[in-house]
Amino acid sequence: MSLPREFRSDNAAPAHPAVIDAIAAANSGSAGAYGNDAWTARATDWFKAEFGDRAEAFLVWNGTGANVTALRAMIRPWQSVITSEHAHINVDECGAPELLAGVKLVDLPSSDGKLVPERVDAAARRGVGFEHHVQPGVISVSESTEYGTVYTAAELAALAEVAHTHGMRLHVDGARLANAAAALGVPLRALSADVGVDMVSFGLTKNGAVAAEAVVVLAPELAAPLKYIRKQGTQLASKMRYLAAQVVAMAEGDLWLANARQANAMARRLAAGIESVPGVRITQRVDANAVFAMLPDGMTERLQRDFHFYTWDDATGEVRLMTSWATDEADVDELVVTIKLAPP
Amino acid sequence: MSLPREFRSDNAAPAHPAVIDAIAAANSGSAGAYGNDAWTARATDWFKAEFGDRAEAFLVWNGTGANVTALRAMIRPWQSVITSEHAHINVDECGAPELLAGVKLVDLPSSDGKLVPERVDAAARRGVGFEHHVQPGVISVSESTEYGTVYTAAELAALAEVAHTHGMRLHVDGARLANAAAALGVPLRALSADVGVDMVSFGLTKNGAVAAEAVVVLAPELAAPLKYIRKQGTQLASKMRYLAAQVVAMAEGDLWLANARQANAMARRLAAGIESVPGVRITQRVDANAVFAMLPDGMTERLQRDFHFYTWDDATGEVRLMTSWATDEADVDELVVTIKLAPP
Amino acid sequence: MSLPREFRSDNAAPAHPAVIDAIAAANSGSAGAYGNDAWTARATDWFKAEFGDRAEAFLVWNGTGANVTALRAMIRPWQSVITSEHAHINVDECGAPELLAGVKLVDLPSSDGKLVPERVDAAARRGVGFEHHVQPGVISVSESTEYGTVYTAAELAALAEVAHTHGMRLHVDGARLANAAAALGVPLRALSADVGVDMVSFGLTKNGAVAAEAVVVLAPELAAPLKYIRKQGTQLASKMRYLAAQVVAMAEGDLWLANARQANAMARRLAAGIESVPGVRITQRVDANAVFAMLPDGMTERLQRDFHFYTWDDATGEVRLMTSWATDEADVDELVVTIKLAPP
Amino acid sequence: MSLPREFRSDNAAPAHPAVIDAIAAANSGSAGAYGNDAWTARATDWFKAEFGDRAEAFLVWNGTGANVTALRAMIRPWQSVITSEHAHINVDECGAPELLAGVKLVDLPSSDGKLVPERVDAAARRGVGFEHHVQPGVISVSESTEYGTVYTAAELAALAEVAHTHGMRLHVDGARLANAAAALGVPLRALSADVGVDMVSFGLTKNGAVAAEAVVVLAPELAAPLKYIRKQGTQLASKMRYLAAQVVAMAEGDLWLANARQANAMARRLAAGIESVPGVRITQRVDANAVFAMLPDGMTERLQRDFHFYTWDDATGEVRLMTSWATDEADVDELVVTIKLAPP
Repeated sequence: MSLPREFRSDNAAPAHPAVIDAIAAANSGSAGAYGNDAWTARATDWFKAEFGDRAEAFLVWNGTGANVTALRAMIRPWQSVITSEHAHINVDECGAPELLAGVKLVDLPSSDGKLVPERVDAAARRGVGFEHHVQPGVISVSESTEYGTVYTAAELAALAEVAHTHGMRLHVDGARLANAAAALGVPLRALSADVGVDMVSFGLTKNGAVAAEAVVVLAPELAAPLKYIRKQGTQLASKMRYLAAQVVAMAEGDLWLANARQANAMARRLAAGIESVPGVRITQRVDANAVFAMLPDGMTERLQRDFHFYTWDDATGEVRLMTSWATDEADVDELVVTIKLAPP
Repeated sequence: MSLPREFRSDNAAPAHPAVIDAIAAANSGSAGAYGNDAWTARATDWFKAEFGDRAEAFLVWNGTGANVTALRAMIRPWQSVITSEHAHINVDECGAPELLAGVKLVDLPSSDGKLVPERVDAAARRGVGFEHHVQPGVISVSESTEYGTVYTAAELAALAEVAHTHGMRLHVDGARLANAAAALGVPLRALSADVGVDMVSFGLTKNGAVAAEAVVVLAPELAAPLKYIRKQGTQLASKMRYLAAQVVAMAEGDLWLANARQANAMARRLAAGIESVPGVRITQRVDANAVFAMLPDGMTERLQRDFHFYTWDDATGEVRLMTSWATDEADVDELVVTIKLAPP
Repeated sequence: MSLPREFRSDNAAPAHPAVIDAIAAANSGSAGAYGNDAWTARATDWFKAEFGDRAEAFLVWNGTGANVTALRAMIRPWQSVITSEHAHINVDECGAPELLAGVKLVDLPSSDGKLVPERVDAAARRGVGFEHHVQPGVISVSESTEYGTVYTAAELAALAEVAHTHGMRLHVDGARLANAAAALGVPLRALSADVGVDMVSFGLTKNGAVAAEAVVVLAPELAAPLKYIRKQGTQLASKMRYLAAQVVAMAEGDLWLANARQANAMARRLAAGIESVPGVRITQRVDANAVFAMLPDGMTERLQRDFHFYTWDDATGEVRLMTSWATDEADVDELVVTIKLAPP
Repeated sequence: MSLPREFRSDNAAPAHPAVIDAIAAANSGSAGAYGNDAWTARATDWFKAEFGDRAEAFLVWNGTGANVTALRAMIRPWQSVITSEHAHINVDECGAPELLAGVKLVDLPSSDGKLVPERVDAAARRGVGFEHHVQPGVISVSESTEYGTVYTAAELAALAEVAHTHGMRLHVDGARLANAAAALGVPLRALSADVGVDMVSFGLTKNGAVAAEAVVVLAPELAAPLKYIRKQGTQLASKMRYLAAQVVAMAEGDLWLANARQANAMARRLAAGIESVPGVRITQRVDANAVFAMLPDGMTERLQRDFHFYTWDDATGEVRLMTSWATDEADVDELVVTIKLAPP
């Protein structure tokens, strides 16, 4: 393993070799474009197997594309998306939801990246029927969150109830849904179809694919226009088989689950290794594959010579240490020991 | 070679094996996300080598994404895009330019998919300065066109002059620019930078990649906001190295050119083989990798048992026979002989 | 009457004095903003009286606002609006439908500004279910048209049938619906609710108001979001009573009808006066309040010293002579005699 | 004066009689549409006189229209608008900026409706050059604010400096700019052109017009596309003379200033009258024409029998008492005495 060791992002990880093999295997002969191929059919079947028979999956390029496609299918421009202030759609998509869906995001404060039903409910009640205000449309949560925390199935069910009480939809940005499922030891449907989620942006890229995401529609009445929304939103692949082959590879033997477990285990190992180091304070629950921490003064700069990671909050110095399916014990142990041995 | 033989689209072709090999080769260790990696640097360099030092390339997922990104960078919503009625942006993008760029497309009639400077000029003059009308913004041409025809460098230069006379930009939808360059025996820059083109959507997918396109900015003053436009438009890849690796593979030994030449040669071979068959009429110049033709009554249905291809115009029965880098002489000869031997 | 006499546009006419009086009368005491006032209630009632009990009217500022509001309420961005190439929404709204509704306009050729059911039907069938193409959403007609021609009730019914057969909606841009109703001698509902029209942009401004238009929803299932669409589209007036008062004034004693009749009569008088003048050719049916004509060489320039009017088509020299409620016989007769006496 | 007395909004007030007179006076003969008339020329001149020779004014229908038009002229969709959480553009425009301009609003907490330079500066620095984040584009302030507070000229100058340091623009939502100028005893330019404001939404409707607002461009390099932006945004009036006549009436003898002074004086009189009443707490500075207050338990409901006003914050019971040019001493005194005499 070469230095610097990688803790920047699960996006910096390579693809799992099985994914590359599947792409190569799909590279034989001609195939119908735009999803009219056997790989796409297999991928679609897998989504039904995992998310339930009513699930309709639409493969897309990336997470922002999945999120915007899903939002456009669930609401109209005069409706709002209630979400966490830290949500990827709010912070990290350069205004894509506003531009493409024309909607306003109503971002709620959150200390751990999670939404609380009571606050969402209060926000949803504000201005209902009042034409000057955007109307409640979607609750969007990230599972796992941008802070590496995880909603339990019961917590998601409570949010779904709030959503449906107000005639809203519940969207899960599941760029790391696999990590959440692995963390809780439940199937994917337990965090989606079974608890009233209407649409999921399901991510495979961070979890070991080259580039493959899906919009999984769990409310069948929303499915019909999805194909047009995907195409108009520039998210339709011509040689779709190569996206589908990645899904098939990740499905095979539950590779998605093994990868997510590995990433999560490495984060827990890291947290366990450093949590009692003097001057180190872990700032968020380590539910999934990220460790947020405050480090002793000056340590961040010294560590960044040999380890790749980001300062998350410039104001406080809080850092994010992110693991992936490709992180191994040697990576973690090297980081732990370096932190432990650092001069005070 | 398995039946049915493939003449539907260059999108139905597999990727060139060298592209798959490059993806596999890139799959080693971690790499900076979003283009902060060595493969992207190499890809970017290749674009400068081909399109000139001023060229700035931004890799994107697909052709619609490239076109919309380019249009957004060149104009504002109250401006128009003058294009052919047959243009991909006008017909085959499900309204993506209207939604994402907010612009109106002004589509001109065209018998061969090409724009004529005089007509464009007339359209550009209409309503200038009149606030009720959209204002001339961009001329967008497809090179090669949706009808398999090709603009010469001089023809593009004439359109660039019209554009710049009116303060407009010239955009080339180059999903098949490689085929045009191969057909004319000129370098890519001869059909772009050297003749005043401002921005190119450069396609590699149809020509042998898995999925890789680029917006190539040739007017440097337009480059600064491109990265935001790409991200906001959902066209930024996280694991960019895999897009870049495809570019590198296509660049190596001018594979892009060899692939395009093969596709073009197979179209010419096909046209030459069938043009004198009684009842067959080739309806467009065969400049690049498509043959448009009228077939004798009933032949289309019979052929479609063993050959994949599309009826292009339901009203007239005109068919499109499309070749790709993967089409070989056996494919063509089998089709030719079948057409020749067909019962009258 | 001062020179130059006015034939540019019904927009150049003043408001009818009764409209001004109504505005003044409404200017007493406080009133609920945004339509919570007695004048708006009366205006709304009038729309129900004219268009039927199911009609829901939403007052807006201007015709472009009415059209865009209506389109947004009827379709989604991946759907198309099939309309005439000469339609106001296509030519004279600076791309507002594309920007605000995100939709593509499919404009059909038309020699008289009217759509023909067969052509619309063919356009609506193209690409249905094909995700690359925009899907049929709305048929939009102008009644009366931009060429001063009028659809009969039967012609509108035929278009409504085409629309509804394809699951589309029929929209009437009725900036001059009053002129059409006056021309045909039928009530407003005969050209809208009674023949299957789903939504009307009803104009009063050109017909004698200061500024008052309405979106009249005739398909009740579309009404609920209108108030949000109007507000988000910047078309909600705060001091709504002044818009409503104009409607009330135009309703009183059927002033709208008297005004439209006068405008139409003046156009007919003008056409009758000049149609047999050598060198003059009237180019469109004079159904409503416009006369389109070719004039002898040089006459346009000479006339424009004393008469305000526009050259409609720079290429041919065709002129538009437009009458309004404020045009009187002296205006027309002066123009007629000037044309008749013009030196050859 | 009839009961209930009006304290809901300056939008509930009638127009000043001089405005109605001006509309009536403009109603004579024909006039060029879309601003090609003498009244518009006079209105435009007045804006130059008030805001400086470089000012270019574009009349529009309403405040939301003015704000969206201004924002579209200042930024591109991947840029942000930094504003107060209470700003009209953020709360009361039903998502119009997001839909029409495609932008994200970054709303900062504010206890009094005003932005503080340090916080704006911090927000503007976040993510600059980082393609995942929207880029700083505009600072938008309301003057006077939605809480009836006023920025001093120096405070605006400080915000302009922050804006220009970051390459941003400063926008003033001046729906009540007249009230601010009257409160501070300074000319309009002292709160706009003289302190570096780039664009103003200038409101006349709340201050005594029927419906007339303007986008006043103070940075001349931004003026050229305004006319297209206004038209495409549905904010261009055909019979513009009637908007312009209102401006002329409000300009005559500084009626705008007299009206604003009256409204402000009535708010101050009201505040002075109730501030020492036991159980009453005035919650915001009374700079302009609004009084925000907490009332004793149960008083709100009793008062609303005879006085029109809104509860501003359902959670706390805070009320807003708004005055206008039409509020007189009798209105205020009646309210004051009723509050004073209310049973405990």
